[in-house]
Amino acid sequence: MPNLSPNRHDPTLIALGDAIRRIRQKKGLSQEQLALLAGADRSHLGRLERGDNEIAVLLLVRIAKALNISVAELMQEAAL
Amino acid sequence: MPNLSPNRHDPTLIALGDAIRRIRQKKGLSQEQLALLAGADRSHLGRLERGDNEIAVLLLVRIAKALNISVAELMQEAAL
Repeated sequence: MPNLSPNRHDPTLIALGDAIRRIRQKKGLSQEQLALLAGADRSHLGRLERGDNEIAVLLLVRIAKALNISVAELMQEAAL
Repeated sequence: MPNLSPNRHDPTLIALGDAIRRIRQKKGLSQEQLALLAGADRSHLGRLERGDNEIAVLLLVRIAKALNISVAELMQEAAL
């Protein structure tokens, strides 16, 4: 059974997922590469980018680090 | 049994918890008041401020909104 969060399609998660995808693509990284760099599960990262999964702050920190930006910059990109 | 996160005393969580407490106190809010405004459990908020609990991004957004700042500003205050 797919592990869909009850927060699926929450506007905040969609904005954050879009920001992660935009910055990842700007840096020329694939989802697989970012998942590896951030120590995240590839399918979890895919759901995050679609705004389907809630995200814990420690993973957010690892994703920002892997993208070589601060969490504050990532949040600004997401307008959060 | 106390619900302690395996991430207890993680430096990221401590920095974020300290930032939430500093801004809350600057705004003259009690933990009870912030918990009520953010729709959070008071004891969960207490553990967050001590860096004992992991935090989900949707709660972080509600806390920032209750403190009348953006999540990006909260992250800047935590130097994250």
